[in-house]
Amino acid sequence: GGWKVIDNKKIEKTYKFKDFKEALDFTNKVGKLAEKEGHHPNIHLSWGKVVIEVWTHKIGGLHKNDFILAAKIDEIES
Amino acid sequence: GGWKVIDNKKIEKTYKFKDFKEALDFTNKVGKLAEKEGHHPNIHLSWGKVVIEVWTHKIGGLHKNDFILAAKIDEIES
Repeated sequence: GGWKVIDNKKIEKTYKFKDFKEALDFTNKVGKLAEKEGHHPNIHLSWGKVVIEVWTHKIGGLHKNDFILAAKIDEIES
Repeated sequence: GGWKVIDNKKIEKTYKFKDFKEALDFTNKVGKLAEKEGHHPNIHLSWGKVVIEVWTHKIGGLHKNDFILAAKIDEIES
């Protein structure tokens, strides 16, 4: 949970961390998953925070694969 | 060069890469530098592109240290 649909064309979620390093570690885990899936979100990294945006560039909107990627990103956390 | 001053309160630069992995590698180099310097930019990572924003949170604007960090980020590239 925690994903918001923005303008009916992307989904976004904010993850909080205790410091920059943990946020960077999460960014790398998401990056590794993205490479494996062949589907790349936008990742906004700042101190203690990572905001992930997912959408399908080819259609300029949301596809089933976006929700699958979102679910897999959520699995990284736990 | 290539840094733009935005609203007189932050500096921003866009770096382009050949794929996601190279952009992620650069993100990690910037992250490592940020930890060393104790000064953390915002890093926006997407496929083949990294946008870096630097400012000093404490003063809500630009300080000499921001330009020093920017220069050190530029040194990573070469």
